[in-house]
Amino acid sequence: MTLPTEQLAGRLEGLREEHRQLIAQGLSLDLTRGKPSSAQLDLSAPLLSLPGEGDYRAADGTDCRNYGVLQGLPELRELWGGLLNVPAAQLISGGNSSLALMHDSVVAALLLGTTDGPRWVDTPGVAFLCPVPGYDRHFGLCEKLGIELIPVPLTEEGPDLDVVKRLVAEDARIKGMWCVPTYSNPTGATYSERTIRELAAMPTAAPDFRLFWDNAYAIHHLTEDEVTIPDVLGLCAEAGNPDRAFLFASTSKITNAGSGVSFFGSSPANVKWLLGHLSKRTIGPDKINELRHMRFLPDAEAVRAHMRRHRDILAPKFELVRQILAEELGGLGIASWTEPAGGYFISLDVPEGTASRVVELAKQAGVALTPAGATYPYGKEERDSNIRIAPSFPPLDELAAATRVLATCVKLAAAERTA
Amino acid sequence: MTLPTEQLAGRLEGLREEHRQLIAQGLSLDLTRGKPSSAQLDLSAPLLSLPGEGDYRAADGTDCRNYGVLQGLPELRELWGGLLNVPAAQLISGGNSSLALMHDSVVAALLLGTTDGPRWVDTPGVAFLCPVPGYDRHFGLCEKLGIELIPVPLTEEGPDLDVVKRLVAEDARIKGMWCVPTYSNPTGATYSERTIRELAAMPTAAPDFRLFWDNAYAIHHLTEDEVTIPDVLGLCAEAGNPDRAFLFASTSKITNAGSGVSFFGSSPANVKWLLGHLSKRTIGPDKINELRHMRFLPDAEAVRAHMRRHRDILAPKFELVRQILAEELGGLGIASWTEPAGGYFISLDVPEGTASRVVELAKQAGVALTPAGATYPYGKEERDSNIRIAPSFPPLDELAAATRVLATCVKLAAAERTA
Repeated sequence: MTLPTEQLAGRLEGLREEHRQLIAQGLSLDLTRGKPSSAQLDLSAPLLSLPGEGDYRAADGTDCRNYGVLQGLPELRELWGGLLNVPAAQLISGGNSSLALMHDSVVAALLLGTTDGPRWVDTPGVAFLCPVPGYDRHFGLCEKLGIELIPVPLTEEGPDLDVVKRLVAEDARIKGMWCVPTYSNPTGATYSERTIRELAAMPTAAPDFRLFWDNAYAIHHLTEDEVTIPDVLGLCAEAGNPDRAFLFASTSKITNAGSGVSFFGSSPANVKWLLGHLSKRTIGPDKINELRHMRFLPDAEAVRAHMRRHRDILAPKFELVRQILAEELGGLGIASWTEPAGGYFISLDVPEGTASRVVELAKQAGVALTPAGATYPYGKEERDSNIRIAPSFPPLDELAAATRVLATCVKLAAAERTA
Repeated sequence: MTLPTEQLAGRLEGLREEHRQLIAQGLSLDLTRGKPSSAQLDLSAPLLSLPGEGDYRAADGTDCRNYGVLQGLPELRELWGGLLNVPAAQLISGGNSSLALMHDSVVAALLLGTTDGPRWVDTPGVAFLCPVPGYDRHFGLCEKLGIELIPVPLTEEGPDLDVVKRLVAEDARIKGMWCVPTYSNPTGATYSERTIRELAAMPTAAPDFRLFWDNAYAIHHLTEDEVTIPDVLGLCAEAGNPDRAFLFASTSKITNAGSGVSFFGSSPANVKWLLGHLSKRTIGPDKINELRHMRFLPDAEAVRAHMRRHRDILAPKFELVRQILAEELGGLGIASWTEPAGGYFISLDVPEGTASRVVELAKQAGVALTPAGATYPYGKEERDSNIRIAPSFPPLDELAAATRVLATCVKLAAAERTA
């Protein structure tokens, strides 16, 4: 965004007054994290009393109350494998967090090596590509484990292929890349077929390069156009790189957040590899919770109908933010924002050097925003221009109030800079 | 055990015939793993429909259906901290597996270092002491992660202190020691107060030495004498080694196996350290499952009453095995076995060099036993004399039949050796 030369500068005092009035209102609003709202959680109310007394047998007769079944219940993997485009035999169902499966995959590669390469701890300077803006927890996980983060631009069709292909071809330290291929966090971009084909096929200097394919929003549509992306595992195999992709997903934004089921899908060799690691860590996942999920959402149609109920709650919130931003900031030439067709976030770009100031001004007025830079590696965006908006949690009236505060702060920060 | 010189050798043919008759019966029995029986799992039937529709608020009002609360629900930590002798603030409640918390603690030490030492991956030859016989999964976890296993003898009062103190004083590669202090797996030994005091206070060459204190059977009594062990965290602190012990426990053998809650207890510094690691791996534990457990077992008295119901099912099984072993093997001078006052296992010692043969003979007769050597590092016991018996899972009639087969096989293997 460029700064407007006059229009806003002339309004500096008026905007300051507006901001003072907002502070005086003593608001306490939150646009930070992508949490489902109470209304969304209510959709899964039956889970709280499932599977029900006396119901503890899986389809094959397994007593889900006892130890075992490391890979997860077959019927659960069958159902969700269908939804995620992964054969059931190539899917692992894990605990309550797909982030944990991502973490454990990185840990296994670090300490045991992959199917096709030595331990990553023995490779100095192991690095991951990070399309930006992206998901802070992906980056934080790597940073904590000592993996270098290299930002690459995210376009509307996915990561900038020219940059990605050049980097992975020349630098064997690059062992992985974070991808949120459907309704990306935070821009909402969905990878194009061409992008996915090229990521699957591109030559990499590291033979053990992995796509960390976090399909977190695979079925989290905000419109009736229910996008599906091409089968990344199939495309990798077709291109002669069968072990390239680790696919992740969870039900955290489908049923209850933090009480759901997570999934890892990959090639048969990678599945065997990860199970070998997990077998030393646990005797198996919480099968009662898996059964509970089967009872609540027994088939693909039930899942899709359930997701439409989420959409009915979420879509008006995204529309409200869009309307207010358009009203307040449209035509000023100081801000642009994404209008995602799915997922949990809106990405807002403000004039260079003002994002941190917007967050600060909003905080003064009682609106919590994700720290500027959070969507970049090491929490730092050189341009200081990106802000992530999470519209899902607040009720509509609070969301409207918070968005209006945000818009005022964007204008005030821009005016301050030009004044 | 020594081999008898004549008594059994003369019966070799008779024992062979007995064994042939057992084979002919076509039995299929299992004494391998320490799993709760169906009758035990039935004790927790109400959990299958808890917390119940509309019940999702923790005591402080937290909506357990949403993300967060990395350390676990305060009321759950208060209750179980009381039972485990750990202040609630120093307890973390995790997922469905305490083994996973042990694994993650080792991984954090390997990749991040501890509060008082550098990354273990940077120390060549990191080693753990393993009291033997011990728990195979403890050993397997370390082996997989490249940690050397050093066996030390387990006595009736805990690990042999002379050996342990000498080794840890002289070898800085020794960073940890596996301990099952109450009703040890598999001998049933409970560490004495002197043992625990000395382990807490002994000088160690490694400043970052840790006791991996798996108090898996803390409240799993088989008699009315409900043993409690001294507070290891307090004793470590008193001795000037506040960060020495990592305590672990879970409800897997209290409620449902693999659908319970796990715990990590330690010093404030260690708790902060592990939370720092876990915060990059997950947004929090399954709080609905924590709430479910609170509703089912709301206070310490409820837990103790529940454990007495387990005892009523388990104690007759242990007594049955004791009786049959005494009848069949007593006075022969070829076998000895433990008579534990709690826990899940009986440890059987047979003449040197015959344990593997006993397991083989039992398998021929349709009785699955844990592989000989499983209770030793790398699955190898030089003396080949220890067999672990797990009496919990089979119903009484099957347990009796399996134990009689086992006794016959012990006699036959001994007779073969003397013949």
